[in-house]
Amino acid sequence: MATERVASWAVNLTYSSLPPEVVQAAVQSFYNWVGCAIGGATHPATTTALDALSPFFGKSTSTLLGNKATRQADASHAALLNGIASHVHDYDDTHLATIIHPTGPVASALLAQSEAVGGVKGDEFLTALVAGIEAECKLGLGVWPDHYDVGWHITSTVGSIGAAVAVGKLLRLQTTPMQHAISIAATQVTGLRDMFGSDTKSFHVGRAAQNGLLAAVLASKGYTGSLQAIEAKRGWSNVVSTVNTVDKQLSTLGSVWEIAANAFKPYPCGIVVHPVIDGSIQLHREIAPAGKNVKDIKSVVARVHPLVLELTGKKTPQDGLQAKFSVYHGGAIGLVLGKAGPAQYTDEVVLNSEIISIRDKITAIADEKLGADETEITVVFADGSELKKHIVHAVGSVQVPMTTAQLEEKFLDQASLVLGTEGAQTASKLAWGIQTSRAVETLVKDI
Amino acid sequence: MATERVASWAVNLTYSSLPPEVVQAAVQSFYNWVGCAIGGATHPATTTALDALSPFFGKSTSTLLGNKATRQADASHAALLNGIASHVHDYDDTHLATIIHPTGPVASALLAQSEAVGGVKGDEFLTALVAGIEAECKLGLGVWPDHYDVGWHITSTVGSIGAAVAVGKLLRLQTTPMQHAISIAATQVTGLRDMFGSDTKSFHVGRAAQNGLLAAVLASKGYTGSLQAIEAKRGWSNVVSTVNTVDKQLSTLGSVWEIAANAFKPYPCGIVVHPVIDGSIQLHREIAPAGKNVKDIKSVVARVHPLVLELTGKKTPQDGLQAKFSVYHGGAIGLVLGKAGPAQYTDEVVLNSEIISIRDKITAIADEKLGADETEITVVFADGSELKKHIVHAVGSVQVPMTTAQLEEKFLDQASLVLGTEGAQTASKLAWGIQTSRAVETLVKDI
Repeated sequence: MATERVASWAVNLTYSSLPPEVVQAAVQSFYNWVGCAIGGATHPATTTALDALSPFFGKSTSTLLGNKATRQADASHAALLNGIASHVHDYDDTHLATIIHPTGPVASALLAQSEAVGGVKGDEFLTALVAGIEAECKLGLGVWPDHYDVGWHITSTVGSIGAAVAVGKLLRLQTTPMQHAISIAATQVTGLRDMFGSDTKSFHVGRAAQNGLLAAVLASKGYTGSLQAIEAKRGWSNVVSTVNTVDKQLSTLGSVWEIAANAFKPYPCGIVVHPVIDGSIQLHREIAPAGKNVKDIKSVVARVHPLVLELTGKKTPQDGLQAKFSVYHGGAIGLVLGKAGPAQYTDEVVLNSEIISIRDKITAIADEKLGADETEITVVFADGSELKKHIVHAVGSVQVPMTTAQLEEKFLDQASLVLGTEGAQTASKLAWGIQTSRAVETLVKDI
Repeated sequence: MATERVASWAVNLTYSSLPPEVVQAAVQSFYNWVGCAIGGATHPATTTALDALSPFFGKSTSTLLGNKATRQADASHAALLNGIASHVHDYDDTHLATIIHPTGPVASALLAQSEAVGGVKGDEFLTALVAGIEAECKLGLGVWPDHYDVGWHITSTVGSIGAAVAVGKLLRLQTTPMQHAISIAATQVTGLRDMFGSDTKSFHVGRAAQNGLLAAVLASKGYTGSLQAIEAKRGWSNVVSTVNTVDKQLSTLGSVWEIAANAFKPYPCGIVVHPVIDGSIQLHREIAPAGKNVKDIKSVVARVHPLVLELTGKKTPQDGLQAKFSVYHGGAIGLVLGKAGPAQYTDEVVLNSEIISIRDKITAIADEKLGADETEITVVFADGSELKKHIVHAVGSVQVPMTTAQLEEKFLDQASLVLGTEGAQTASKLAWGIQTSRAVETLVKDI
């Protein structure tokens, strides 16, 4: 009954039933996503995809965020390209319990189709966004961790379904067609982890958005899938995972809100690196006052959760993209530069000899006793003295969330590189206004 | 090295190196596919998808086979819609060792992109078709049978990769970009078997075509995936299957040609039903000469390979689509009507009381000693007398292939329902001419 349960819950969800913290989380998630999509608009993965696919573009209805040259595309291609852009710097949000990046697939599809439909109000948009994100995260929890462990990029595999639910809600599907939409999305299982470190990782997010949009649009015209797509013997949950707690997870739909646990990244790289970056930045600030110099560092040992090495164990990254998967680069920029924004993940910084020198002195040791947002770092200097740092929860965790001011700084930092300072400020103001927007297409047309 | 091996082999394949039987098989596969795509053009699954997706259509470059109203779409949508149409009657070809329907995903992508590119000659087209089909079938063999058993629709999961290889060859990718194309296709694992019996089964074939086309086009502009997408620990073969004989299968690339073992269906339903239909049609012809009448049938027992019941065990199909998954309907139309063409799979025939009456008298018994193309049927009449039939190999098997005349009859039977007799004959003549075509787009524009 899982498919029907998700469909029926989403169909019946109303804006007035959303608790204030859920609405706030939805606004923040949308805002953070817009900033990331603008920030990623000029990345080669986005522009290469745009260049390759523009011959296929249909009627322009939907905004390509951060692209002032090719401003629009058809909804399907806008969903793809905004999805790629929003994930390409690995700077988007994270549902920590599953490491799903929930907003990318859902918002990319939803915004593009909202513009194509026209006249969608902010409350309607946010309700659909919440429906999609809840469906996506509950299903992700239902196959976690086996699904991810075996090699699926969970963000896009469940993202296709979340996008279908959101667009299906926008199109006002009833329960049965919503089940078909979920089904058509579920059968497009997109995203292998082997792609991490290549352009295709962010393609997954864009394709998930397209998959879901396509599924909902097909279902809205009567296209059929399976009514038991999630739970059937050869349906989604059983084919993509040996663990299946979907029913249990769905039992808390509407009572435990996953979007309320959505976290935002202060650093544009895999979230498991963040404790090491936090610790390294804090240590950077203590090195001079302690009368030491970064050049005097002899060795660095970081004890980390085992997942950190599994996901980000690249010892010698060769470019900015690979560096996102290197806990060593993260530690080095923290220690040497005291910052870890997009500007510290350029190819130039990754290949800088001073950074490489410190990077190569860092040893990371997996320690199962540590949490995923925890680290213990010991810096040993040439004279044998040490500095230590214990990060219990990294910034951007549920315990230490980013503040609104930090979110805005992150948005402006990214967006101003693409739109300039003034353009970034305009975009920021518009994106914050989603809740009271009277027509989403007028909100985004000036971004 | 699997990804590189497939890529390098495909890149270096030349028309002059194709054995005559491979060229012949490629021509027949293309011809049969065109007939099926025309035959499926008016099916509701095709027309619903067309209706839903036409708002997204880009510049018209590529033919929608069998559609005289909306003649063209952009290449990506043409790939999708021709792919759906070519599979929707379950009448397309079958690589018997894997039950992959190989031509649908590959030809749908290849034809659409060939028209968009323009000036592609028949020999170039056929070489790319062979490259795609060989890649697809070898990889399918490499994960067979576990991949299918667990619930993947193997036609579309490997079809995405085959389509990428074919379009990549058309776009003259070199080995490294071809590896990326394979990778971007491999990460889009489309097709759950739970969709069988719904519109989404044929969507899988169309989507696989689109996946592959998109992958090759992206790779042609420099978009990157993993260079080890097939063989990596968290790459395609290890994530989608617990069985992995990919290396072994690839060792026979270019020496054992899978396309030469491609089989064509005389009946528009799952191939495992064909022995029962063959036997039932033969029994139909013997009933009257034996002084009996179908109305006097008391019971029918068909001993069949276990896969027959697993795939086509639907006892009481409610429409033409469900009937394709019913060995009981297949037996009933054979016995009552002596035919099993598209006209015997309409909703009307499925719900006909005489058909239902015989259908309900049929028992199918799984027998592991029988081959997948074998059956033993016993018809018992009210007076206790019996007629028996042992089909050792069904028509359309490798042992009893369809003749060229039978292929043409099948093409004309399907196409004339859509294009009329004259239109079907024109289309047939044009499709046979693929080998010597000087530009594929001129060949198909009059189909």
